[in-house]
Amino acid sequence: MKLSKSFLLVVTAILLMANTTHAQQAPAYLNPKLKVEERVKDLLGRLTLTEKAMLLGYRNQPVERLNIPAYNWWNEGLHGVARAGESTVFPQAIAMAATFNPQLVKQIGVVISTEARAKYNLAVANNNHGQYVGLTYWSPNINIFRDPRWGRGQETYGEDPFLTSQIGLAYVNGMQGSIPAQFKIAATAKHFVAHSGPENTRDYFNSIVSEQDLRNTYLYAFHKLVNGGVSSVMTAYNSVNGVPNSVNNALLQNILRKEWGFKGYIVTDCGALDDVYLTHKYLKTRTEAAAAGIKAGLNLDCSGVLQSDVEEAVKQKMISTKDVDLALTPVLLTQIKLGFYNDPKLSPYYTFSADSIHNQAHINLARAAAQQSMVLLENKNNVLPLKKEAYKSIMVLGPNAASLDALVGSYHGINANMVNFVEGISAAVDKGTRVEYDLGAGQTDTTHFGGIWGAGNADLTIAVIGLTPLDEGEAGDAFLSAAGGDKKTLSLPASHIAFMKALRKGVKKPIIAVVTAGSDVDIAAIAPYADAVILAWYPGEQGGNALADLIYGKVAPSGRLPLTFYNSVNDLPAFSDYSMKGRTYRYYTGKVQYPFGYGLNYTTFTYEAKSKVKDVYKLADTIEVFCSISNSGKAKGIETAQAYIVYPVNDDLPVQELKAFDKLSLEPAESKTAVLKIPVSELQKWDAEKHKFKLFPGTYTLKVGHDAADKSIVQQFIIK
Amino acid sequence: MKLSKSFLLVVTAILLMANTTHAQQAPAYLNPKLKVEERVKDLLGRLTLTEKAMLLGYRNQPVERLNIPAYNWWNEGLHGVARAGESTVFPQAIAMAATFNPQLVKQIGVVISTEARAKYNLAVANNNHGQYVGLTYWSPNINIFRDPRWGRGQETYGEDPFLTSQIGLAYVNGMQGSIPAQFKIAATAKHFVAHSGPENTRDYFNSIVSEQDLRNTYLYAFHKLVNGGVSSVMTAYNSVNGVPNSVNNALLQNILRKEWGFKGYIVTDCGALDDVYLTHKYLKTRTEAAAAGIKAGLNLDCSGVLQSDVEEAVKQKMISTKDVDLALTPVLLTQIKLGFYNDPKLSPYYTFSADSIHNQAHINLARAAAQQSMVLLENKNNVLPLKKEAYKSIMVLGPNAASLDALVGSYHGINANMVNFVEGISAAVDKGTRVEYDLGAGQTDTTHFGGIWGAGNADLTIAVIGLTPLDEGEAGDAFLSAAGGDKKTLSLPASHIAFMKALRKGVKKPIIAVVTAGSDVDIAAIAPYADAVILAWYPGEQGGNALADLIYGKVAPSGRLPLTFYNSVNDLPAFSDYSMKGRTYRYYTGKVQYPFGYGLNYTTFTYEAKSKVKDVYKLADTIEVFCSISNSGKAKGIETAQAYIVYPVNDDLPVQELKAFDKLSLEPAESKTAVLKIPVSELQKWDAEKHKFKLFPGTYTLKVGHDAADKSIVQQFIIK
Repeated sequence: MKLSKSFLLVVTAILLMANTTHAQQAPAYLNPKLKVEERVKDLLGRLTLTEKAMLLGYRNQPVERLNIPAYNWWNEGLHGVARAGESTVFPQAIAMAATFNPQLVKQIGVVISTEARAKYNLAVANNNHGQYVGLTYWSPNINIFRDPRWGRGQETYGEDPFLTSQIGLAYVNGMQGSIPAQFKIAATAKHFVAHSGPENTRDYFNSIVSEQDLRNTYLYAFHKLVNGGVSSVMTAYNSVNGVPNSVNNALLQNILRKEWGFKGYIVTDCGALDDVYLTHKYLKTRTEAAAAGIKAGLNLDCSGVLQSDVEEAVKQKMISTKDVDLALTPVLLTQIKLGFYNDPKLSPYYTFSADSIHNQAHINLARAAAQQSMVLLENKNNVLPLKKEAYKSIMVLGPNAASLDALVGSYHGINANMVNFVEGISAAVDKGTRVEYDLGAGQTDTTHFGGIWGAGNADLTIAVIGLTPLDEGEAGDAFLSAAGGDKKTLSLPASHIAFMKALRKGVKKPIIAVVTAGSDVDIAAIAPYADAVILAWYPGEQGGNALADLIYGKVAPSGRLPLTFYNSVNDLPAFSDYSMKGRTYRYYTGKVQYPFGYGLNYTTFTYEAKSKVKDVYKLADTIEVFCSISNSGKAKGIETAQAYIVYPVNDDLPVQELKAFDKLSLEPAESKTAVLKIPVSELQKWDAEKHKFKLFPGTYTLKVGHDAADKSIVQQFIIK
Repeated sequence: MKLSKSFLLVVTAILLMANTTHAQQAPAYLNPKLKVEERVKDLLGRLTLTEKAMLLGYRNQPVERLNIPAYNWWNEGLHGVARAGESTVFPQAIAMAATFNPQLVKQIGVVISTEARAKYNLAVANNNHGQYVGLTYWSPNINIFRDPRWGRGQETYGEDPFLTSQIGLAYVNGMQGSIPAQFKIAATAKHFVAHSGPENTRDYFNSIVSEQDLRNTYLYAFHKLVNGGVSSVMTAYNSVNGVPNSVNNALLQNILRKEWGFKGYIVTDCGALDDVYLTHKYLKTRTEAAAAGIKAGLNLDCSGVLQSDVEEAVKQKMISTKDVDLALTPVLLTQIKLGFYNDPKLSPYYTFSADSIHNQAHINLARAAAQQSMVLLENKNNVLPLKKEAYKSIMVLGPNAASLDALVGSYHGINANMVNFVEGISAAVDKGTRVEYDLGAGQTDTTHFGGIWGAGNADLTIAVIGLTPLDEGEAGDAFLSAAGGDKKTLSLPASHIAFMKALRKGVKKPIIAVVTAGSDVDIAAIAPYADAVILAWYPGEQGGNALADLIYGKVAPSGRLPLTFYNSVNDLPAFSDYSMKGRTYRYYTGKVQYPFGYGLNYTTFTYEAKSKVKDVYKLADTIEVFCSISNSGKAKGIETAQAYIVYPVNDDLPVQELKAFDKLSLEPAESKTAVLKIPVSELQKWDAEKHKFKLFPGTYTLKVGHDAADKSIVQQFIIK
């Protein structure tokens, strides 16, 4: 822990020497002019087997002999630097997906990595090499939100592989920066693979996955992010078709390494390698698990199995020292790309400091993201937007109106100025406007409520109900969950529904219901008791301000559902069933509460095709669609034109898939042209007989419209 | 509602006329140069009986003929302008009492009235004459916190009549301003009298009260505030010895009006006059209740009984028109003193506007008040204050760590920058310090918790548990309460206790427990699981900052308990028993958890008497005590020297009573002299045989020390 300053001096001294006639004497691994691979090779040659084993674990002791500092690989930044003190808290991941705005998400990635670098610089200056203040971030979570019961669905970008890859790639690009050889920070795509609950059995669960679902759904976004340069992939706790992910040769070696050419580091989810012999009981001993992990391609163990047992595995000849070197290579490569062995002053990120953390520009971005993420689900008689001057007394109430948990979601940072819904409304109105707050309802009591008399006495009621990350989340975290982190149904808490009913009874004037959740919840249960319903997700530190911006029409609503809102879990296969059949808008054809892509506006839009697709397309083609989108209403609006491909009917193919979208801002009476491009190669699907992707022949339909159920523009084409 | 602007024009025109030769034609009630009584008499002469009846209710319609504007008398400002939107939220009333600092409380009253005037000015400019934006404030609550089960005890200044009157008077003086003829705002002493639960039977409860308890305890602070010029008194819901307070001639006419000479307005608690015939069934009809209220001295009805039935009561000759005029006189008098019938521009408060609301000076005062109110109950091995640099990772968790309800207490305002405990700690540490948050525990679940792994992983844990105003409060508001607003026991929520136990198991490093509550709670249940315990009350908008200031030693702890912390409610008489016997430090002699006046410091103080009381005192004397207080420790400290009188053993007398206190700030090794003065007249107690106060002869003891149990200085004297 006391090494860092002296280490910097040594590095600086060595680098100074490198400029003298003795340059050839500087160790290669410290020479930034050499190729990364050469530096790694040099460093490998200087480490003992014991040191190498130690470096395969996530908590690295310093190697004093080589001036390698202590380092903890575990850092979190799902929607802002997390668990590390003051940071900008962006909307939860699912809400970022709801923006349908990769450019915005990339900017968020840029800010997160800036804050991460600043925290790292502050920590190193403070001789702090502990958890959550490093440069290797274990985000994003690009698992497919296969089933709305999954507690961690909030961490994902929704149910659609294409949207997930678009948002995920933007985020990774923002996080990692624009200099490939100098990672701003290292991002991690997780959890590889077919990981989406149940939470309470995750340490021994076996996902039964067809080749088609694996390739067309579960692997899709991972492949895109690997192609896009993500520096790391994290293995999931569960097994896939009988083999635990962390020792799964077929997935890690054959697909990730060989087929995709992934060169970054593969890290286990925390404790996943222990699970291999303890809970999966796939192998018998800890040493076997260590050896199998190395053989499968693991580079880092978020636990102590590799650290403790790699030497023994070598001794027993289960693995070779060359295997160990191969395993450690991506780890050291990542360190070097992060600048660990360079003069820190040469880093483009060296000057980031306290003023790079949670500054006004970052706060503004968090507010913009929250504005764009909230989804207007209901708006009876166009009650929204509200005219501020018409409502001189406002009751803001409900269990989540001032809930910090509902604001921040899981894997979150904190700061001193988080704006909950009560604070946001209070800040938006003038000081002559009467605003009151009441909790309204408890977690379980369905008969006792508060604030209803006060709401009846006000011009406007804003009721904030819904879930919090205590109701849905990761095993162990969401301790109020019905099922070990997961949900059992789509229901909102019974106490909240009863509260809304009582509220409607006592209130004649408008009620705006704001629902917090990170997943599909049954809105129909409360919609009858409100004049408008806004899904706020877990909107981050600026949630309250963003809500006020929306309800007063300062900004137009533009959030779109990145997942289907079903009527009931009874419409779905069993939670433990990993077949995509009958799941998500891509494979489910029954009635829904709100379709994928859904979200209301304060205005109306009309679509008109400006071009016609070709009759026939080939693999190398790109389908180009030009649509005129017109704001035919009276308010400014933001529309996301969504292009879907409807596939020929075939068990090997999905029903339909989002393949392009374009988010446009339009003044009243304004028209703009949405340009939607779809490479035909994107229409390839897995051929399970020939074990490769192919273009299935048949008649395809292109739909462009407001959401997955809309048919504003429909055109057909043929693939031969 | 559309009158106010035209009304101002008319008033201005008339006042301009008053400067001309036609001055004699201006109505007297509009002439600020005339005596208040003369103006009231003039206005009374212009009103019809119907208009007078209307003006006896709290919601006044305008009297267009006389340009009397609409007005709503109901406003709340218990610890900041409440329910009216943005305002500075000071610590809850019980916490203000814990400061033992009347000067500070007076400043709070000044700020509240400034914000109230500003809100009124903004509202009038906006033609808003509705609830909560007027000038007649129904605060403070000076009931004696007789039993810790009472949910509204948080609204009071504790269990001691002397402290209650000192704090209450300071607050009223601050609220009403320094110009007797021009109330800044009108304050109200409530609830008259012997009102302290149970909440769920308050509408028909009969408090059985002895003459001694009534005079020595329940009436004491009311008398002091009436003498101090409080402009209003509110009657309580309950009966006293069989007669509902709102129609209680003996209390209202004989004591309040005649014996004390109270000239202000008497208002019912809301609906209390309805209770007289509906729930108390003390009278049979609404008209009888109206007549009895007028006869007893009521001036304003927070309901519609007087408005609807006064004319009928006159018709039936139950009351005379003169009775009605007498009833309305204090109401109009209050309006005139508030400036209702003057040119508003002549008001010293005319310029207060938006910048007078929740500005930095007001925020600073809220922070100072919260700092001085929190009570350090436990501090094992002097773990506090903490050295900031020694704790680089902090877990702030627990159900109340980010609870807005726990921050603000009941009858509260809101604003956009309320600082909860998580935010406060986050703001206090540098950006390189890792701070995490977790809810930790739910409202009821005693087996599932969160954040414990994270706490075990941190250098410091701050766990915020306790009650919220949903657990204890007014009937109808505290909807999570065990007994209709009240508590059944002193217990903290079972889930919180279990959480603390689990936390201690998982955490080796320091745990600071912060308990929120507005009443006596059983600290012993959680003290074993924490290294330090701070009672934070409901600390207001700056609670988080104040907590950080205290735990990092930026300020010294100086809060003192304004009520006894018992071991159990089993040590107390039944909740419904209004006898003071065996209640509060004045009459209870058993073992306690923490005595009245208790609170730890970060340093030690030694007391030395610098004078000796006289051997014998007479009624006209003042007992003067000079004590040298020395800071004998190593930290700066604030000590409140408390002087108690121990009475001769006699059933008519309390055991002991606080009669003076002096709050001193001392640097290490510094000494200051506390000056404690007690008029011997203050030692008079009620003689139930002769129905008057008298000085009981005997040997008295003066104690000066740290709290009610301390005997640092003990001196005796005789009253003959």
